[in-house]
Amino acid sequence: MSHIRGRLNKAVDKLVNKYTASIPFDWRLYQHDIAGSIAHAKMLARQGIIAPKEAESIVSGLKAIKDEIEQGKFQFKPELEDIHLNIEAGLMDKIGEAGGKLHTARSRNDQVALDLRMWAKEAIAETRNKLRGLQRALLDLAEANKEVAMPGYTHLQPAQPVLLAHHLLAYFEMLQRDIDRFGDCLKRTDVMPLGSGALAGVGYNIDREFLAGELGFSEISQNSLDAISDRDFVIEYEAAASLGMMHLSRLAEEIILWSSAEFNFIELDDAYATTSSIMPQKKNPDVAELVRGKTGRLYGHLTAMLTTMKALPLAYNRDMQEDKEGFFDSADTLLATLEVVTGIIKTIRVKKENMKQATQRGYLLATDLADYLVGKGEPFRSAHNIMGKLVSYAVQRGKALNELSLAEYKQFSPLFGEDAKSITTETSIAARDNTGGTAPKQVNKALARARKIVSGGS
Amino acid sequence: MSHIRGRLNKAVDKLVNKYTASIPFDWRLYQHDIAGSIAHAKMLARQGIIAPKEAESIVSGLKAIKDEIEQGKFQFKPELEDIHLNIEAGLMDKIGEAGGKLHTARSRNDQVALDLRMWAKEAIAETRNKLRGLQRALLDLAEANKEVAMPGYTHLQPAQPVLLAHHLLAYFEMLQRDIDRFGDCLKRTDVMPLGSGALAGVGYNIDREFLAGELGFSEISQNSLDAISDRDFVIEYEAAASLGMMHLSRLAEEIILWSSAEFNFIELDDAYATTSSIMPQKKNPDVAELVRGKTGRLYGHLTAMLTTMKALPLAYNRDMQEDKEGFFDSADTLLATLEVVTGIIKTIRVKKENMKQATQRGYLLATDLADYLVGKGEPFRSAHNIMGKLVSYAVQRGKALNELSLAEYKQFSPLFGEDAKSITTETSIAARDNTGGTAPKQVNKALARARKIVSGGS
Amino acid sequence: MSHIRGRLNKAVDKLVNKYTASIPFDWRLYQHDIAGSIAHAKMLARQGIIAPKEAESIVSGLKAIKDEIEQGKFQFKPELEDIHLNIEAGLMDKIGEAGGKLHTARSRNDQVALDLRMWAKEAIAETRNKLRGLQRALLDLAEANKEVAMPGYTHLQPAQPVLLAHHLLAYFEMLQRDIDRFGDCLKRTDVMPLGSGALAGVGYNIDREFLAGELGFSEISQNSLDAISDRDFVIEYEAAASLGMMHLSRLAEEIILWSSAEFNFIELDDAYATTSSIMPQKKNPDVAELVRGKTGRLYGHLTAMLTTMKALPLAYNRDMQEDKEGFFDSADTLLATLEVVTGIIKTIRVKKENMKQATQRGYLLATDLADYLVGKGEPFRSAHNIMGKLVSYAVQRGKALNELSLAEYKQFSPLFGEDAKSITTETSIAARDNTGGTAPKQVNKALARARKIVSGGS
Amino acid sequence: MSHIRGRLNKAVDKLVNKYTASIPFDWRLYQHDIAGSIAHAKMLARQGIIAPKEAESIVSGLKAIKDEIEQGKFQFKPELEDIHLNIEAGLMDKIGEAGGKLHTARSRNDQVALDLRMWAKEAIAETRNKLRGLQRALLDLAEANKEVAMPGYTHLQPAQPVLLAHHLLAYFEMLQRDIDRFGDCLKRTDVMPLGSGALAGVGYNIDREFLAGELGFSEISQNSLDAISDRDFVIEYEAAASLGMMHLSRLAEEIILWSSAEFNFIELDDAYATTSSIMPQKKNPDVAELVRGKTGRLYGHLTAMLTTMKALPLAYNRDMQEDKEGFFDSADTLLATLEVVTGIIKTIRVKKENMKQATQRGYLLATDLADYLVGKGEPFRSAHNIMGKLVSYAVQRGKALNELSLAEYKQFSPLFGEDAKSITTETSIAARDNTGGTAPKQVNKALARARKIVSGGS
Repeated sequence: MSHIRGRLNKAVDKLVNKYTASIPFDWRLYQHDIAGSIAHAKMLARQGIIAPKEAESIVSGLKAIKDEIEQGKFQFKPELEDIHLNIEAGLMDKIGEAGGKLHTARSRNDQVALDLRMWAKEAIAETRNKLRGLQRALLDLAEANKEVAMPGYTHLQPAQPVLLAHHLLAYFEMLQRDIDRFGDCLKRTDVMPLGSGALAGVGYNIDREFLAGELGFSEISQNSLDAISDRDFVIEYEAAASLGMMHLSRLAEEIILWSSAEFNFIELDDAYATTSSIMPQKKNPDVAELVRGKTGRLYGHLTAMLTTMKALPLAYNRDMQEDKEGFFDSADTLLATLEVVTGIIKTIRVKKENMKQATQRGYLLATDLADYLVGKGEPFRSAHNIMGKLVSYAVQRGKALNELSLAEYKQFSPLFGEDAKSITTETSIAARDNTGGTAPKQVNKALARARKIVSGGS
Repeated sequence: MSHIRGRLNKAVDKLVNKYTASIPFDWRLYQHDIAGSIAHAKMLARQGIIAPKEAESIVSGLKAIKDEIEQGKFQFKPELEDIHLNIEAGLMDKIGEAGGKLHTARSRNDQVALDLRMWAKEAIAETRNKLRGLQRALLDLAEANKEVAMPGYTHLQPAQPVLLAHHLLAYFEMLQRDIDRFGDCLKRTDVMPLGSGALAGVGYNIDREFLAGELGFSEISQNSLDAISDRDFVIEYEAAASLGMMHLSRLAEEIILWSSAEFNFIELDDAYATTSSIMPQKKNPDVAELVRGKTGRLYGHLTAMLTTMKALPLAYNRDMQEDKEGFFDSADTLLATLEVVTGIIKTIRVKKENMKQATQRGYLLATDLADYLVGKGEPFRSAHNIMGKLVSYAVQRGKALNELSLAEYKQFSPLFGEDAKSITTETSIAARDNTGGTAPKQVNKALARARKIVSGGS
Repeated sequence: MSHIRGRLNKAVDKLVNKYTASIPFDWRLYQHDIAGSIAHAKMLARQGIIAPKEAESIVSGLKAIKDEIEQGKFQFKPELEDIHLNIEAGLMDKIGEAGGKLHTARSRNDQVALDLRMWAKEAIAETRNKLRGLQRALLDLAEANKEVAMPGYTHLQPAQPVLLAHHLLAYFEMLQRDIDRFGDCLKRTDVMPLGSGALAGVGYNIDREFLAGELGFSEISQNSLDAISDRDFVIEYEAAASLGMMHLSRLAEEIILWSSAEFNFIELDDAYATTSSIMPQKKNPDVAELVRGKTGRLYGHLTAMLTTMKALPLAYNRDMQEDKEGFFDSADTLLATLEVVTGIIKTIRVKKENMKQATQRGYLLATDLADYLVGKGEPFRSAHNIMGKLVSYAVQRGKALNELSLAEYKQFSPLFGEDAKSITTETSIAARDNTGGTAPKQVNKALARARKIVSGGS
Repeated sequence: MSHIRGRLNKAVDKLVNKYTASIPFDWRLYQHDIAGSIAHAKMLARQGIIAPKEAESIVSGLKAIKDEIEQGKFQFKPELEDIHLNIEAGLMDKIGEAGGKLHTARSRNDQVALDLRMWAKEAIAETRNKLRGLQRALLDLAEANKEVAMPGYTHLQPAQPVLLAHHLLAYFEMLQRDIDRFGDCLKRTDVMPLGSGALAGVGYNIDREFLAGELGFSEISQNSLDAISDRDFVIEYEAAASLGMMHLSRLAEEIILWSSAEFNFIELDDAYATTSSIMPQKKNPDVAELVRGKTGRLYGHLTAMLTTMKALPLAYNRDMQEDKEGFFDSADTLLATLEVVTGIIKTIRVKKENMKQATQRGYLLATDLADYLVGKGEPFRSAHNIMGKLVSYAVQRGKALNELSLAEYKQFSPLFGEDAKSITTETSIAARDNTGGTAPKQVNKALARARKIVSGGS
């Protein structure tokens, strides 16, 4: 703390002030800081630690400051270092000596822990909402394209035909885990630290449950040393956000691939594409590329905060001031990314015919033909070998499987009959008829389940 | 897959085989692979997909292989690439053609997802147990030193006196969050993926609920594409492990500091210390240093897996084989670390007298004296200023606060009276008497609560 | 150090021994440790610190141990913790009391620093060789396909036509930077630390320059505290390896894309591809996928070591034992990756016709047409606008640019003349005729320059 | 690119514009962008691609824009997305149609690569200067305290006595490696990419050597695809910065430890310390803590950029826009950190007496006594054992080594004579008299060498 100089006899060096000041980023906590201070002042009065008049004066002073901030009239001073001291100094300017009583039974250590938890709770709620919004967009797109078939890929090679809706629902599942994960993170964030003081608790008869109630917390912290040195909730958010962003990077990669001239499965809306400063023909999926690129950013913030917290002795150390910028940026980036990806999904044009044609490439039905042989009594492992040879034969002749004659099939196994030729993309898809499979029946069930999830709660 | 060559006409290059083989590390999944295959064979028979005799033969073959592995008699072959093919090939050697039917309605993609989830569930359970074990050791140490006072630190500067038990319970709280976090991770791990096939589901009338029941899973996966391309549970474990290791690195740092000649608060048991190859006098806290050092390792594994999964298109890609080594090492390292830290805590010798003496350093009671002035009507902010000047005065004279006369106190504020001199480490500690504070009453409550937690469930 | 117990009165706990032992991985330093010890013994004798006979006995004992290790006869003992003590104990067994004199004027702290630097120097040399090898393979492939045109991409959208050789040479450049970077890393690795003792230097009249000469080092370290606590060279290798692996991940991504059914630009040799356990038709680029996937691994090791070294006070701390496993694995992985990628490049089949056809897609010549208008006096920015509209017109009609009539062109600008229709892939490529451009003339120059680099030195 | 819409028929979505705009951070490149454009315009005129008048008009327009920006009068427009388009649009407003000719023979892809390399070159130069500045401060402090002895530590346990100057010079060495490393990074940064066009080179008769000369580059890039997709120089800076920050985190850790009440080796100047909002006695080393904490930030940026670049196909992808913010912040943070650490070192107060007293703790002379026995003919390994027992004996009796009688010494080895008692901190330090050792003679040589380095070049 540079402003309050306590026992120190010299002003802080200017460079030092700049180096240590957090006001350039922690001003974002002003609402939470003020709400926390109002609750604290009320509590102090209820407990007889300050006079009711003093509390009233503090509360109205703080409300006035909030208005000033929101109207852009409040003057933040870097030499006052952080949001807490800026507001406290503003309060003393406004209401005089009573303002000096607000910091009774409180330290910046528990104050900042409170503010950041309040901010985190809101960020979690908003993140879960936007995850839900993207789920909705994916579900809408899936429902609108229920019948569309496409190649399923493994190793980016055509593997087996699937429904596009099934593919989209895979992302629905990922996002559902994200929603649940942020929900779990919330449990450990929703703990009220005020009353922990600098590190040891406070020497006043305070009422922590009242504070928790006023501020909408479910629990109060159980150990003051831990409460002021715990930033698990920041790291846990950043880890969940990294996972979520990883999911979005996979979707972005597919949007980029599918928009390529070679795949040509989708077309982005012009409002979600950009062109080039030099190449007039370009329609680039920049937004999806940035989604993919910004994944590094979130991983970086996670790495940063884990590194910062490593091996810090108890309790508060100034290193922990590094908790905010990366956290804010992780949340900002994830939220903005969810919004733009939702926008892309809502406006994407699916080129059904191209997807369908692509299912003709790559011998997608080979597994079904192996299964066909299994149905005729061949063990799967040898059926697989037979089909391997059959595909190799077709590749060498540059033919698709359905361009081979039954006689050619029979060269590889006498078990092949006419009905082998009736295996199609449609029968292949329909055959995968167990929970989680791509058969239309299963996909319809999954769509209904997903609709229920997005309509009700998580 | 290098062994099964399908349509390929050439053996895989030797370097490639070495590069792609996972058997050097995935042999650890043998139990899970065999258990999964046994359940699968039973299910195939129940559903009439293979004959009961065939299933019996498969099951007994697999059990025999398990015995061979455990007796060190099973020959793992690198050219068979992974644990799945090694066991399948072993089975075919042992029971012939029926062995070739085991892979019906299954792919290595869902098989490996199953195996790894089973392994992860065990790792989670063991991790939670060992976290509990360390909680117990900390609690025992705290209870055995209930009355010991020490300086509480912020910024590694003496701040306010606290009870050692209070300090130890801060770690109890961190570990409790770890236990809860791994519990949440378990929910998303405990999902049975078998039946997802290569990516699209399988074209057989299988019974996935039966499989889940046999294998002790709570849920089955809902989307085949997601099920085979999801490694969230690995990353989530690694993230939780990184957080847990971060907590242990903080404890390790304190063990190192407290063992130093300068702090001299504790002495490690000789069984947990080492000496030097050249300096005969050394007693080094190597174990604690390695705990701190290995934190990097876990962060690294987390970074690695997040990076690997970034921007992979659906569904399975071979990149995902990188999921195992880091995961195994994260779990191994965390478990071993928890064991050795528990050992350190169980055998540590607390130097109570040195801790107590240290509370005399550093003007630890200044906050209490400021609070004293607040009690006499001074606003906190000005009381803080007064004490700042008083401490500065004492520092310049090289005196402790209790070495100043009342007259000297009064130079700084007329509110000081005789009773100011009765403020001691003990009264300071006792004053912090709210939930989470360091007062003996609160610490006793916290110890009782902690004892209940380690005795009951989490 | 667990074996030498110095002042400690108790054996080290077994778990602790396992936790702290490095012999499971540092055995790899045996050659370097022995070479270092031989040089040290010779130096001690030259300086009269030990008797010549003793030195001879030590040297022949160490050579015998080396032979035993290489013949698999040497018994490594985990309770002896590390490679240094295993060898020292083996020496004392073999030659008796004289063996106890080897550790004169030396500490494990400078000994391990020496060993690891020697290992690192070899790793760097091998890495540079293998980078060169891949450069050669790329160059051979480029020369063999000098005339092949393909679409150049930005944003994975067709941008402008380029020569395949030009594209391949881009990777040549990246690898050249890698070679240079490892060369720079070598300068800071090639510094001899022996003689730094435990931390302060040694109290004997040693000859450090002699040691450097014997062991092939260019310089000796200048500060003992730094020399034993410096692991920059490990981190610098890992950073350079991460960059190199990033380059390889880009190449791997392109191999995967180009092998896809949709791009279909190349075919991997069967020896470098794998198939599926279930889908018989698959030919998967698993090796390239693993190259991409293992990138995470190297990033992870870099993160780990940076984290481990953060905030360690001087001088040696046991945390630093974590320097080896990640380093060894980074080098092993990078070397193996370079080998397999070289193998892929050497055996790849280029599908020239498909590449050529692809240059017809995507209005690749639009920039050239804009440049054409610039040649006729239109400012570039408005020429770009004109071409944007022209492409949009063509897209809406589903036509390629060369399918439009001159009249249609002229609707957009009167400057278009017949000669606009003579712009082709070939003229477009030939036009980019400045250093670094894709014109055949430039590419030929670049190929010649590259050939000279791989033939001479770097 | 959102502003130039080329073939696209819809304005970009507002969210998308916000998501993709880089002007909030890339405005910092305005000087470099303008300098690059001026050189480009001159070159275009020299080559006859534009008229001399046009070039003059462009140059004076750009200079006017630069002035406007520096006077805060230039209106940056987010809808113009980036610094390049903002300036280009400003130019067209100012000089009309001729402005549209500036982008001839250039793409934003090579333009941004140029700008960022110019920025990087300046950042490297400034970083090296500030590293030198800190070296100077360390050297001044070392010279001013040449004779001060202190305990050298390993494992944070007292190990052997050293000179403070020797300890400080260890950091000098680290910083020297940093300076060299940034110098190597510079070589790969100092390469002029303009003329690479969008990806393939440009179809105009440009003069790249002229551009390099105008802009102060040593080399021109050799491959256009590489030149526009290479961000190695960013990553290499971030890696070097991470290493440098790691060094500073070690120094910061020692500043924190040495400022603690327990070590009490130094006192920070009041201008470099802060106090507490609640504890009036506190003098906290916040600056050093932030140095340590911000290390995570730099590691995070490195992780981020490595992740972002992973597996990007050639050539430019929008992901690469993520290259700037982390890079800028890494440089800003490192530079600011170097400044504040230099300030700390310049104003630190060394408590020589406390350091000296500390050398009496912890049996620091045990190695010297073992070396004494070696001098009398005892092999080192057994001398070490003898001293281990002697120290253990002393510890049990609570005595320092010099408090034991010669008779007691002789119980452990008959080789001890009176002269053993003349071993002191001073003789121990003086004995370590080889290059890199802590003997005053060596330290004086090292100080002279260091002074020469900071006076001349590196």
